[in-house]
Amino acid sequence: MFKRCLIGLAALVTLSALASCSRGPKPTSEPAQPPGPPPPTTAHIAPSVEALIDSALTDPYAYEKLGELCDEIGHRLTGSRGMERAIAWSQLSMYQAGFDSVWTEPVTVPLWTRGHEWARCTAPVEFDLTMTGLGLSDGTGPDGIEAEIMVVASYDELDARAAEAEGKIVLFDMPWEGYGSVVKYRTGGASAAARHGAVAVLVRSATGVSLGAAHTGMMQYADDAPRIPAAALTVEDAGRLRRLAEKGLKPRVHLYMEAINHGETTSYNVVGDIRGRELPEEIVLVAGHLDSWDVGTGAQDDGAGVVLALASARILLKQDLRPRRTVRVVHFTTEEYGAQGGKAYLEAHRSELDRHVLAIECDSGAFAPRGFSVQADSTVVEALALAAAQLARVAPDEWSVSKGGSGADIGAIVREGVVGAGHRVDTTHYFDVHHSGADTFEKVDPDHLAQNVAAIAGLIYTVAESPARPGSIPAGQNSSGGHR
Amino acid sequence: MFKRCLIGLAALVTLSALASCSRGPKPTSEPAQPPGPPPPTTAHIAPSVEALIDSALTDPYAYEKLGELCDEIGHRLTGSRGMERAIAWSQLSMYQAGFDSVWTEPVTVPLWTRGHEWARCTAPVEFDLTMTGLGLSDGTGPDGIEAEIMVVASYDELDARAAEAEGKIVLFDMPWEGYGSVVKYRTGGASAAARHGAVAVLVRSATGVSLGAAHTGMMQYADDAPRIPAAALTVEDAGRLRRLAEKGLKPRVHLYMEAINHGETTSYNVVGDIRGRELPEEIVLVAGHLDSWDVGTGAQDDGAGVVLALASARILLKQDLRPRRTVRVVHFTTEEYGAQGGKAYLEAHRSELDRHVLAIECDSGAFAPRGFSVQADSTVVEALALAAAQLARVAPDEWSVSKGGSGADIGAIVREGVVGAGHRVDTTHYFDVHHSGADTFEKVDPDHLAQNVAAIAGLIYTVAESPARPGSIPAGQNSSGGHR
Repeated sequence: MFKRCLIGLAALVTLSALASCSRGPKPTSEPAQPPGPPPPTTAHIAPSVEALIDSALTDPYAYEKLGELCDEIGHRLTGSRGMERAIAWSQLSMYQAGFDSVWTEPVTVPLWTRGHEWARCTAPVEFDLTMTGLGLSDGTGPDGIEAEIMVVASYDELDARAAEAEGKIVLFDMPWEGYGSVVKYRTGGASAAARHGAVAVLVRSATGVSLGAAHTGMMQYADDAPRIPAAALTVEDAGRLRRLAEKGLKPRVHLYMEAINHGETTSYNVVGDIRGRELPEEIVLVAGHLDSWDVGTGAQDDGAGVVLALASARILLKQDLRPRRTVRVVHFTTEEYGAQGGKAYLEAHRSELDRHVLAIECDSGAFAPRGFSVQADSTVVEALALAAAQLARVAPDEWSVSKGGSGADIGAIVREGVVGAGHRVDTTHYFDVHHSGADTFEKVDPDHLAQNVAAIAGLIYTVAESPARPGSIPAGQNSSGGHR
Repeated sequence: MFKRCLIGLAALVTLSALASCSRGPKPTSEPAQPPGPPPPTTAHIAPSVEALIDSALTDPYAYEKLGELCDEIGHRLTGSRGMERAIAWSQLSMYQAGFDSVWTEPVTVPLWTRGHEWARCTAPVEFDLTMTGLGLSDGTGPDGIEAEIMVVASYDELDARAAEAEGKIVLFDMPWEGYGSVVKYRTGGASAAARHGAVAVLVRSATGVSLGAAHTGMMQYADDAPRIPAAALTVEDAGRLRRLAEKGLKPRVHLYMEAINHGETTSYNVVGDIRGRELPEEIVLVAGHLDSWDVGTGAQDDGAGVVLALASARILLKQDLRPRRTVRVVHFTTEEYGAQGGKAYLEAHRSELDRHVLAIECDSGAFAPRGFSVQADSTVVEALALAAAQLARVAPDEWSVSKGGSGADIGAIVREGVVGAGHRVDTTHYFDVHHSGADTFEKVDPDHLAQNVAAIAGLIYTVAESPARPGSIPAGQNSSGGHR
């Protein structure tokens, strides 16, 4: 087991509670399981789970912690002062909650800075565009880039009109048919356009609902294409440029971005254990990612997940429930640039992966709870669904535990055979705020947050306390979900 | 009758169609009314109204004109190049539609420029605030203003805590209970705070729904208070500052605004007549306001109203319906700074007010139609409701013609006794976009726009063609509605 105690270099909050780096397990009065056939999976656990749910539904802890993270720390872009403060806050929070061990694990991550940026339509009518540079994009140089816009709705259209792209700024104004249908243009649009001679790329924000906000997110440069700057426009401005182009008015845009890729730096995953009563070497992992974009305060993405993982483990301690297995909370760094935190966790824990009984990722916000999606074979999914049936009480409208993706951070270990679960909520309004200035504290409903703590705490405890573990599946057969 | 032909000085569109300043009435083949008792008010009009509605519901004209105004011209702040272009566009559009007379009337208006502006929270955590200076506010000077924030939810709270305001920036973070409940803080908050020694004022944006946009609007300085700068914050940022203040963390803000009040300049109302067949001296007036704020493109406020007034009059000509009375379209200037255009119209037309049979204002956007509110005595309201009953077909879900406010622009003539009607729509989502960057072309549904043209054209024709006029009420008994 790890018992390191690395504190973020720029810890700006009081860390006096960290004086003792590790705490011993609390004494437990529960007797060891008697010999003989194991009891039904959840029967003896049910009363404790009921009490956990009752306690979680009325506990203000999670909402208060989310307020600290979003309002008092704010955005947590990898490499920013906010992220350094958040790493310290995470450790302090786990200690204050009574975790037995809290430590950080180094992760090599990209260091990118946005700098000043703007865009302006210069013809046929002059107006400022509301934009946000995409994460990991290069800048434009001091003069910016001014060129005619070529508007396309898809890669197919870009390919069909490839001869027109030379010297243009390509704008992807694609129809919204869900995040999966459009995010590929944000991620890969720059290189696709650059291969045809485009000098910069703009993409319509990846949202179905817009009130004038630009939505950022990661982009990636392919090795075989020139690196051209990439930014997102609001749905409103992308549509106006498209309509002007459709009228034959040849809109032109001046784009200016000071963005810089500085190479690599070190960030940290924060890990905290509540040591198992009987099987401390077996781990039930629950996680969220601490980093966010630098617009808004990362409340739903993924402040909510960070707090859900923390609060659902803490409520076990509050209820004096120390389960058989170890409960581990991981606050990953740098999900937004490509899940570097999750990959580093795999490398650091490769030798003990078979002792990870279940990994749960919370990265869909804290809207009304809907259950869990489980990335495992059907036998395991069914066993978990049965074990978690009791939790449906927190989401009477709709609840399911069914086969599906888990999450971007735990994807690395899930692909190696760990059973993964994704926390499921009503995501109807998730992408309205996702990666935009609107992803802020008041968007999280305190009742929904508490219901999700109840559901996740119930699942953690059920699995960590269960006599039988849900099993694992062969390495290489899983591919994680998640929306970065 | 006016037959002037003033063209905006900076008319930037081709105005060749304006070569002839006035056109004579088309010959009419309809015989004069026979002597004897008048026919039922609408019975002989009904078939023409049916045809008008059918034509309006399938006519793309209004949507195309709104696209020109919003996308090709853009915002139309009083005194801006966009507003000058819009004044020329309005005249050209009326001529091209076949109006008999088109002219402009000068209006003395405030000249205000926004300049560069920003705000930043400097303590206890540094972050940029999303803001928009309020219209007619003074600027901050070159160093900006940096001070602790005092957050209040109402004038009562400001008064109760008045001793704390000295040297502070007062933030009004008031609960949203509809536009009427909060706009008074945007308008009067600066002077109220300045009387207690505040150095600047911030207000929560006047909207019930926010995805990170700041909503601007007019403010006014009282004569008895120092003039301090005033800006609106997003709902998100106002809430964050309030929560930080509630935690005792004493948030500070640095506000910078280059806004300048330059004094007065001249703008123009655009007026166009379709001359009445039998009673050309009697006028049915239909209006919207051409100016907008300089965020977004003023699509719902009030590009929609401009186009509704224009298109509903034009469709009469398209259907070869020249009613008994004159139909007059007015595109008012400078509603947003205090309805200066409407007041100037009163002064220019005071001697012929009794010949204004009805004035209809379109300034609630082009959402699903709901009828009309009529600012007159009950007899007139009932007569209009009866006459307009046929129009309910365009709004099957909800339709009423009932007593209520009319509009800010026509308020001046309505207060002098002209019967006023306000165009009513489903305003559920009006304030989501109002005065923000989200008030853009694609927010207007083309079907709703066409339905509103049908309703307004039907009302105009019914009243302009009706043998009896709906009458007028004594001067001084009306007060206009509208939301500036």
